[in-house]
Amino acid sequence: MKHTLSVTVDNHPGVLTRVATLFRRRGYNIDSLTVGRTEDPAISRMTIVVDGDESILEQVTKQLHKLIEVYKILDITSEPSVDRELALFKVKSDPQVRGEIMQIVDIFRAHIVDIGRKSLVIEVTGDESKISALEDSLRAFGIIEMVRTGKVAMIRGYKG
Amino acid sequence: MKHTLSVTVDNHPGVLTRVATLFRRRGYNIDSLTVGRTEDPAISRMTIVVDGDESILEQVTKQLHKLIEVYKILDITSEPSVDRELALFKVKSDPQVRGEIMQIVDIFRAHIVDIGRKSLVIEVTGDESKISALEDSLRAFGIIEMVRTGKVAMIRGYKG
Repeated sequence: MKHTLSVTVDNHPGVLTRVATLFRRRGYNIDSLTVGRTEDPAISRMTIVVDGDESILEQVTKQLHKLIEVYKILDITSEPSVDRELALFKVKSDPQVRGEIMQIVDIFRAHIVDIGRKSLVIEVTGDESKISALEDSLRAFGIIEMVRTGKVAMIRGYKG
Repeated sequence: MKHTLSVTVDNHPGVLTRVATLFRRRGYNIDSLTVGRTEDPAISRMTIVVDGDESILEQVTKQLHKLIEVYKILDITSEPSVDRELALFKVKSDPQVRGEIMQIVDIFRAHIVDIGRKSLVIEVTGDESKISALEDSLRAFGIIEMVRTGKVAMIRGYKG
């Protein structure tokens, strides 16, 4: 089963390596990982999607807690949350098919962010299934390149 | 100087650790890192933003090339490219200030993706400076939480 972990860590060299190593030692492949700044410049937030055994994940989480650079670990897999990912697609496009591609882009509420003589770059945000559906629709035209950020997630609401 | 590297790698356990370790050994702090699927399920693409000395970066790049899991490394810092990042903000909001927040959201072409009694979640995509500008504008209301994916980038055009 896929799990989404939100981990807040110290923003300094080596933290990423240490966290990634913990997963690797247990044979856990990381499906996606993002790390970026938070509202506090001293703190980064990692969103990690892993696929694997429940009990091993529990062990990894315990070991993560022991790292002094790790502040908080949330398994938000089963929490109501906003899940988003960003993807860029470069698609083959000549003037004849451009209209058709633009229709698809509209349907997915995506955006064309670059246009060349033979290609287009499309930006889209959404959950994994939406991005995969767009990928399927664009494949017929020829996907030259694709890059995805990996998922970020935030629990809905605020108890403050 | 900040550099943006686009690295295509084998999608299997341990690659992330190995790449991150190379940077860490040279004392390079990774500003942001994303890793996600590409058009080929066997291959992942990492976008790494690092800040540091040119000559050391050259050494790290050479060592990266030696890893068998690494297919291609592009330093796209000085190439014309589409740079994008996704961020989610959870902001304090009661009915009195909601209108004001919605105006800011419109100006930045952002979107409200969750609404609670005391908070809103806002989704935005853009380059780093746009996201930072929105962060500055929202700070007055109280940012409860913020998560950023880190940058993905794609070179414009297609020579194919």
